[in-house]
Amino acid sequence: MSAPKLQTAVVGATGYSGFELACLLYHHPHLRPPVLLQRDSSGDEERFLQDFYPRISGNGSLPLEPFSWTRLAEKGVDLLFLATPHEISREWVPEALRRGLRVVDLSGAWRLKCPQHRQVYRFKDADPDEAAKADSFAVYGLPELHEKDIRDAQLVANPGCYATSIILALAPLVKTSLIALEHGVVCDSKSGVSGAGKEPTSRTHFVEVADNLSAYSVFEHRHTGEIIEQLGLAAPQLTFTPHLLPIPRGILSTIYARLRSPEGARDTEACLRDFYRGKSWVRVFPSTKLPQIQFSLHTNFCDIGACVSPDGERLVLVSCLDNLRKGAAGQAVQNMNLMYGWNEKEGLN
Amino acid sequence: MSAPKLQTAVVGATGYSGFELACLLYHHPHLRPPVLLQRDSSGDEERFLQDFYPRISGNGSLPLEPFSWTRLAEKGVDLLFLATPHEISREWVPEALRRGLRVVDLSGAWRLKCPQHRQVYRFKDADPDEAAKADSFAVYGLPELHEKDIRDAQLVANPGCYATSIILALAPLVKTSLIALEHGVVCDSKSGVSGAGKEPTSRTHFVEVADNLSAYSVFEHRHTGEIIEQLGLAAPQLTFTPHLLPIPRGILSTIYARLRSPEGARDTEACLRDFYRGKSWVRVFPSTKLPQIQFSLHTNFCDIGACVSPDGERLVLVSCLDNLRKGAAGQAVQNMNLMYGWNEKEGLN
Amino acid sequence: MSAPKLQTAVVGATGYSGFELACLLYHHPHLRPPVLLQRDSSGDEERFLQDFYPRISGNGSLPLEPFSWTRLAEKGVDLLFLATPHEISREWVPEALRRGLRVVDLSGAWRLKCPQHRQVYRFKDADPDEAAKADSFAVYGLPELHEKDIRDAQLVANPGCYATSIILALAPLVKTSLIALEHGVVCDSKSGVSGAGKEPTSRTHFVEVADNLSAYSVFEHRHTGEIIEQLGLAAPQLTFTPHLLPIPRGILSTIYARLRSPEGARDTEACLRDFYRGKSWVRVFPSTKLPQIQFSLHTNFCDIGACVSPDGERLVLVSCLDNLRKGAAGQAVQNMNLMYGWNEKEGLN
Amino acid sequence: MSAPKLQTAVVGATGYSGFELACLLYHHPHLRPPVLLQRDSSGDEERFLQDFYPRISGNGSLPLEPFSWTRLAEKGVDLLFLATPHEISREWVPEALRRGLRVVDLSGAWRLKCPQHRQVYRFKDADPDEAAKADSFAVYGLPELHEKDIRDAQLVANPGCYATSIILALAPLVKTSLIALEHGVVCDSKSGVSGAGKEPTSRTHFVEVADNLSAYSVFEHRHTGEIIEQLGLAAPQLTFTPHLLPIPRGILSTIYARLRSPEGARDTEACLRDFYRGKSWVRVFPSTKLPQIQFSLHTNFCDIGACVSPDGERLVLVSCLDNLRKGAAGQAVQNMNLMYGWNEKEGLN
Repeated sequence: MSAPKLQTAVVGATGYSGFELACLLYHHPHLRPPVLLQRDSSGDEERFLQDFYPRISGNGSLPLEPFSWTRLAEKGVDLLFLATPHEISREWVPEALRRGLRVVDLSGAWRLKCPQHRQVYRFKDADPDEAAKADSFAVYGLPELHEKDIRDAQLVANPGCYATSIILALAPLVKTSLIALEHGVVCDSKSGVSGAGKEPTSRTHFVEVADNLSAYSVFEHRHTGEIIEQLGLAAPQLTFTPHLLPIPRGILSTIYARLRSPEGARDTEACLRDFYRGKSWVRVFPSTKLPQIQFSLHTNFCDIGACVSPDGERLVLVSCLDNLRKGAAGQAVQNMNLMYGWNEKEGLN
Repeated sequence: MSAPKLQTAVVGATGYSGFELACLLYHHPHLRPPVLLQRDSSGDEERFLQDFYPRISGNGSLPLEPFSWTRLAEKGVDLLFLATPHEISREWVPEALRRGLRVVDLSGAWRLKCPQHRQVYRFKDADPDEAAKADSFAVYGLPELHEKDIRDAQLVANPGCYATSIILALAPLVKTSLIALEHGVVCDSKSGVSGAGKEPTSRTHFVEVADNLSAYSVFEHRHTGEIIEQLGLAAPQLTFTPHLLPIPRGILSTIYARLRSPEGARDTEACLRDFYRGKSWVRVFPSTKLPQIQFSLHTNFCDIGACVSPDGERLVLVSCLDNLRKGAAGQAVQNMNLMYGWNEKEGLN
Repeated sequence: MSAPKLQTAVVGATGYSGFELACLLYHHPHLRPPVLLQRDSSGDEERFLQDFYPRISGNGSLPLEPFSWTRLAEKGVDLLFLATPHEISREWVPEALRRGLRVVDLSGAWRLKCPQHRQVYRFKDADPDEAAKADSFAVYGLPELHEKDIRDAQLVANPGCYATSIILALAPLVKTSLIALEHGVVCDSKSGVSGAGKEPTSRTHFVEVADNLSAYSVFEHRHTGEIIEQLGLAAPQLTFTPHLLPIPRGILSTIYARLRSPEGARDTEACLRDFYRGKSWVRVFPSTKLPQIQFSLHTNFCDIGACVSPDGERLVLVSCLDNLRKGAAGQAVQNMNLMYGWNEKEGLN
Repeated sequence: MSAPKLQTAVVGATGYSGFELACLLYHHPHLRPPVLLQRDSSGDEERFLQDFYPRISGNGSLPLEPFSWTRLAEKGVDLLFLATPHEISREWVPEALRRGLRVVDLSGAWRLKCPQHRQVYRFKDADPDEAAKADSFAVYGLPELHEKDIRDAQLVANPGCYATSIILALAPLVKTSLIALEHGVVCDSKSGVSGAGKEPTSRTHFVEVADNLSAYSVFEHRHTGEIIEQLGLAAPQLTFTPHLLPIPRGILSTIYARLRSPEGARDTEACLRDFYRGKSWVRVFPSTKLPQIQFSLHTNFCDIGACVSPDGERLVLVSCLDNLRKGAAGQAVQNMNLMYGWNEKEGLN
């Protein structure tokens, strides 16, 4: 006899990450169709996810309902996914935890431990004690690094898309001290436009993005704190520059570091392969065949390749992922799989 | 001794067409730098066109000023270009004419003669008599068809981008009765995104446009009336479908018609060549080398090619232009050149 | 006890359609992993599909083997997919049939019944009798029209991508005589670049395609014959113009026809809905929400929408599909599903 | 009385850089129309540049002729532009110099002084002495650094596109010792596809480039030597990674360096402004408004912006240019302007 299926809910399914998540959950073998909730829905008119994404019409009906805690209880929701702005996540998560829900939050609201790093978000917690309590529960949801904690977590803070691509490339080399961190690490990342959200702005206007490339938020991007905390860096050791690519989705991070010793140079690829042996969702590429954004699109893979300079002193890592999958919704499903003891690949192929 | 240079002004230079126009005027040999006026500027802060389009920085300063009739008079403006929404153009043009200005209006406000065609715009003229008077002055600014009237015009209604591509391809064949209009004409047009304007909307969001193509306003597009009027068609003879292309600029119209006689088929290309002999801004391509959007980008050319079916009964025309040049700002400059007796190519190479 | 799984083989898995097909077959629940065969492989070096498409690395090994009839027999192949040039398909299919294989051919080799239409391919059959025999076996593999014949077919000629998008939109209206064919039908189609194949040419060079649109093969495209035969048109009744879009995949066809009577206009959408009721892979969209290329990408759907002119006389159909799915590999799988009595949707979600 | 116009010739005008160059020369006020020569032309058939680039049709005839030294002499060519592969340039330049021609070579044949850096090109000089002599004449054609030498040069080695974007950003800061070179410099560059040349390859196929980004030639790119030589770096101080962007043209380089002192941080922008004061073709942008690729397209500008980290220790430079203008043909014209004592901006607006 098969186990009863889990009831999940998604707030924010009309955004790009939320939509990707709703689709993945809808086809996940261990789940009932997810309850889709809208924050600012009047509820006067019945709406469906198909109205926002006609591509899924003909696959069954995905109704959108106005959000309410009562509704969550009525539907027997056990796991709540928040694909909401961080201000909303910050406000709602303590209440969700109080009500016994498990939560995977896709925003930046609960990712950071260090108060200084958090300043960039300018959180205004109505009840700072409750918020601090929730903070203490939050587990950074990078399964390749925190699998054990995620399994038991009540609150999983799903990592940022840039942060995932950078942390996964660097973590094995930092942990084995192959990299000389005192020389600093440079992360030059390029992202497709879906990473900027669904809201139309002059930054996401087709004419402004096409035939273009631009750097932005130099020395100021919000994912900086995550990377520093997860890799155990000192702030000045990380230089991170994101760029906006004229493509809909995908991230490529080119990462520059110093190797501690020329001998270590030979071990770089081996170190990555060792670290990710048995991990379902990281692929290590040889230096002769570096990852490209296309390879990871519509998959949950983070692809990593490493090149060492002829003098054995410098390392270039190339890390690619789909910002809506491994960078957001796919990783959220992977986290759920761990939280409920399922195979990490379930629902992600 | 050279003639004194003309003073022009542009309202709406921050939009895509207005910007293209301001740049052309700025480099035009017979003009002083254009006065650039903003409708909704508070005037508190000095702004420059460079702030909106950094690509032109380093080419001298292009200040934006709040619009006022007084300012126009002070600056000695003779010719006013309106790159404004049609509601604004409808309101301002009568006043401009009263003040003795010549006007080239880039909106749809003054293009249509037939009240029925105008209905789609829902004009609400405060002073219908004044508006009707201005209407009676308006000349449809397609230089290849109305050169003589444009030379003397006080008010030139610059044609729509789609309309230009379609009318220029069909006019010679309609006028020589090579086409059997009673069978109808199908115009399938495809436009780059700048044609949808600079305002960020869900329609112009990069993620919605990239890797996509969509038809819109089927049987309802506002340019329909222009095409019908200029070609002397009956309404049901024209079927026009615009599409949104994932490119920043450029239009390609594929036009389908019946030839009156198989004998006429041999004359199609010759008819186009005859009609446009001596015209600077239309290029006729052979059927073996049809126009492509790229060929006309950043030029003022409308490129036309014709293919006849093996049975000699059907005609396919391909017509390309840059919607911001021959489809808007370039054509406006071409009109100005005629209005002031200059060479039609001046300032457009 | 479940049925033993079927063994398939694919020749040409390194092309775009062949690759898409290999991936679909690999994940199909009723199949063993497909045997992948290369025509011009020396066999000296072991190669894998991953070498050509790194995106699938980490999903198990997909070896490429040199083609031989012996190898097909050894592996117990029952169903052979040919994603080969039509010359090769024309040569190999008679032999395959002789050997008792069932075949789905993705090329244009076996689609046409009328010798005149076939002329465009310039077939040079070594054994014309054998070829004629195979021709007599061939079933045009459009499941929505020929389901019954496909079920029993030994040779399925998988339709062209353009042809699929056009025939599916028109067939219901032609069959119910809603359309007045004597006025002709205009099909203006736009395709992504994968439709032009994987071979690098000046036509597929990024710089020639990007920021561009071009019409090609006007009055000469090879899919014309398929459309005429399947819809029962007279040759001069079809005008078909393909265009090359700056996107990797997807087709949108805009189709223009005359309605027989204004009364029939009201029935257009109903006619489409009736015809495709119960069909898994066609979605009918309302005129207020026309299909777009994005909606069908990476799915096996053909999406159709219809707009009728205000005078009730003219019809515009918009038809979209993914040229590598419903336009090629997906449709091949759908055909296989019918040939083996499986659910039409199997392996396509 | 105006000076007699100069006669130039271009070998390789059908390539992307050569075409851009031919167009610039054609409109240059001090030149006669350039003689366009093809290396591998049989000469049997008369060909025109319009046949390869229909966009310029209607602008007068640009005949292509088979290359011969006799023809150059007959036409009275004074200045020869080579837009040829470096092997050809290496072979032809000594002969051209012997014949008294001045040469601007757009390939990598004559850019490098250090034999070690040259190894990457594997030159096989038929007459090493002649080649060495030509090497000794060659001036690196970066006008902002070598204006004086260029003025008198008989042979100008036009810089690489990546190299131009990187050298111009770093040179002022290296020369003033604001940067601590001992910590190394990281140059992460992204280029449009025209930089990969006009030859169709799997790398330039639209489907492989679109929706993608890839790094290539890590630690191995040929422009590395130029950058090292021009900036006076030690080889291990430069880490340069080029990437292929899904756009037709344009380069953005993001450059990472250490500042020698926090005090110097305040001077970075000032240093750039000082260095480029009075230079026509470099624009320095403030850190609040960084350059983007779009800003420099179809111009000869190299745009540079600088951001300093909050701790004042790290510098990020963003440098943009159009690889076919300032990165190739535009710079070649700028060099010509200096060689003949004309204004540096002539023919480039």
